[in-house]
Amino acid sequence: MTQSQSLNGVAPGLDNVVAAETRLSRPDGQKGELIIAGYAVEELAGRATFEEVVYLLWQGVRPTSTQLNTFRAELAALRNVPAAALDLLAAAAREERLTMDALRMAAGAVDLGLPATNEPLATARPILARLPTLVAAYWRMKQGQEPVAPNPALSHAANYLYMLTGAEPDAAQVRGLETYLNTVVDHGLNASTFAARVIIATETDLVSAVVGAIGALKGPRHGGAPGPALDMVFDIGEAERAEPYLRAKLERKELLMGFGHRVYKVRDPRAEVLAQAAEKMYRASGDMALYELAKHVEKTAVALLAEYKPGRNLQTNVEFYTALLLHGLELDTELFTPTFAISRAAGWIAHCFEQQAAGRIIRPESKYVGEVGLKWGEVAQV
Amino acid sequence: MTQSQSLNGVAPGLDNVVAAETRLSRPDGQKGELIIAGYAVEELAGRATFEEVVYLLWQGVRPTSTQLNTFRAELAALRNVPAAALDLLAAAAREERLTMDALRMAAGAVDLGLPATNEPLATARPILARLPTLVAAYWRMKQGQEPVAPNPALSHAANYLYMLTGAEPDAAQVRGLETYLNTVVDHGLNASTFAARVIIATETDLVSAVVGAIGALKGPRHGGAPGPALDMVFDIGEAERAEPYLRAKLERKELLMGFGHRVYKVRDPRAEVLAQAAEKMYRASGDMALYELAKHVEKTAVALLAEYKPGRNLQTNVEFYTALLLHGLELDTELFTPTFAISRAAGWIAHCFEQQAAGRIIRPESKYVGEVGLKWGEVAQV
Repeated sequence: MTQSQSLNGVAPGLDNVVAAETRLSRPDGQKGELIIAGYAVEELAGRATFEEVVYLLWQGVRPTSTQLNTFRAELAALRNVPAAALDLLAAAAREERLTMDALRMAAGAVDLGLPATNEPLATARPILARLPTLVAAYWRMKQGQEPVAPNPALSHAANYLYMLTGAEPDAAQVRGLETYLNTVVDHGLNASTFAARVIIATETDLVSAVVGAIGALKGPRHGGAPGPALDMVFDIGEAERAEPYLRAKLERKELLMGFGHRVYKVRDPRAEVLAQAAEKMYRASGDMALYELAKHVEKTAVALLAEYKPGRNLQTNVEFYTALLLHGLELDTELFTPTFAISRAAGWIAHCFEQQAAGRIIRPESKYVGEVGLKWGEVAQV
Repeated sequence: MTQSQSLNGVAPGLDNVVAAETRLSRPDGQKGELIIAGYAVEELAGRATFEEVVYLLWQGVRPTSTQLNTFRAELAALRNVPAAALDLLAAAAREERLTMDALRMAAGAVDLGLPATNEPLATARPILARLPTLVAAYWRMKQGQEPVAPNPALSHAANYLYMLTGAEPDAAQVRGLETYLNTVVDHGLNASTFAARVIIATETDLVSAVVGAIGALKGPRHGGAPGPALDMVFDIGEAERAEPYLRAKLERKELLMGFGHRVYKVRDPRAEVLAQAAEKMYRASGDMALYELAKHVEKTAVALLAEYKPGRNLQTNVEFYTALLLHGLELDTELFTPTFAISRAAGWIAHCFEQQAAGRIIRPESKYVGEVGLKWGEVAQV
């Protein structure tokens, strides 16, 4: 029997409360394992295309080659976003809003112009297809550049990089991005995924659930802070500065960004997958300097954390190598969380399908701790 | 100790799981009571202005006359919505989207043009002030009419009716609407309020939480279906038709909309408050026919439900008199849920303040029920 872990009967974070059954993913923080729809993340992430993983999550089985080609073509045909969404992005760009803010705004209008449908997959495809277009268009607007129209001949991942830069990425870059997208596509009931499930459980539309999840993912507590991890590596600059720099930080009792995770008490399995993907990508680019510096910083940080925080077993988390990988794709730090959203949207939608099948509203109780029996007299004339 | 009520350890609806402490409201379904910030709903709803109730929820104390005047003026000055939000509403109107869809879209852009602030109340005020403007502007656009600019001399409730119709409402209408808004402003951890808390708990912005909550409130399972309750009254048309009509429905095992509630096992205390408010308003209008028909339908329905569903104690719920009251204000059925949202937004925001003070992420567990150990081979060439 599941029960809350709080003495006064309130479980404010819902820690250890099991709120859903899922076939989508199983993070195991004690073992340092992550299963995605039956596959260990190490087995899946570097081999599958993103479209294959999305199909797997949404349909519960791997696509055959014909099914995959159809699915890729369906998504590719849906990438153009409504004019009203572009207008909204332009308004947000004039105010230099963060890309996550702009994405949350425009995602709400992502289904304008589409015929109404009750078919879940037909509702889901344009959402997934269009989020990268919104991010890339907004990013270019914010830089004062014209958006680049999507290229239906390119894969989901390749087209995203193409719309950001206007240049077709090489195979190593696409593989690097796909490995990242596959690695972070689903991760149990994180806060944004849970928000999506709470919203869709009222039988509202999928856009509402995805917009709510994007809003949650924006929050700094969600666990997505890959920027600062890389900033630290840049700040260190040279391998020999790593130890004195990190030691000084720990002496000042500062947190080391990129280490430790709420779920994983051993090494986050996603970190290793992304480290390998980053290594391949940097190797293909011919410049390994940043990769090697990051590896050295990681090794030094883990050793120093063991010294300064004995027994905590603080290991490299997914943010550290996310930052390195996405930086290698020439993505600005501001694009890290929106790129996370582009992937995780597939997981949110798959969870919504599960929640729709479960068919019940999510409505916990609250405990009232306020006053009772007050009388409403005249307003105080003060 | 709180615990879930499910045999396999999964609490999919989080029934009986206490997810938050709150000083905002206490619905007591067994006793048929609702406390709002210390006051019984019967004590508060018909006496307070909406601005007083919002101040009470947001600040934890009733405002003095000076504080109330300041707060009213602050809200009134913030009612104009960004041009980009109006453009988005126009795009939605061209597609004849439901008002709740349009509200969810445009609410995401409600803070465009505002200076960035970390002050919670300064973030909250424009959201609350602008939602009525979005609803009224959209509704008029959808009818092919020009939006009516907000009038800062009018109260929140009066101005909403003014923006919908272009005419200043009379005192009885304003009192009727304020009583409705006060009655439904907060109600424990309903699904939309819980969605807002899950989202804000990541430390994201208040707009994200409110947009997520609007998305949840749109869902038919949320419990807001006041339209059908009134449709039944219209369908019945004359008092003597009530019994045969309702009996035939019950013989066909059809649900009677407007009766029974997930929480209230006795009469929903809000129903009585709204019934009295509706009576006053219809009396002031000089035409009591619909009110009296509705009372007769209610009485007949409750008696027949006791006969056909013995032991269930199915009583009139909040939807029945919501529909009657809002219809008396000449609101179209499509505006019922958006008007609910305009009120409940004050509760969502107050819950967000509480959640921000609680300072922790909401992240339950999921139970993985899928496969493990699959190998990623070549794609099947089929």
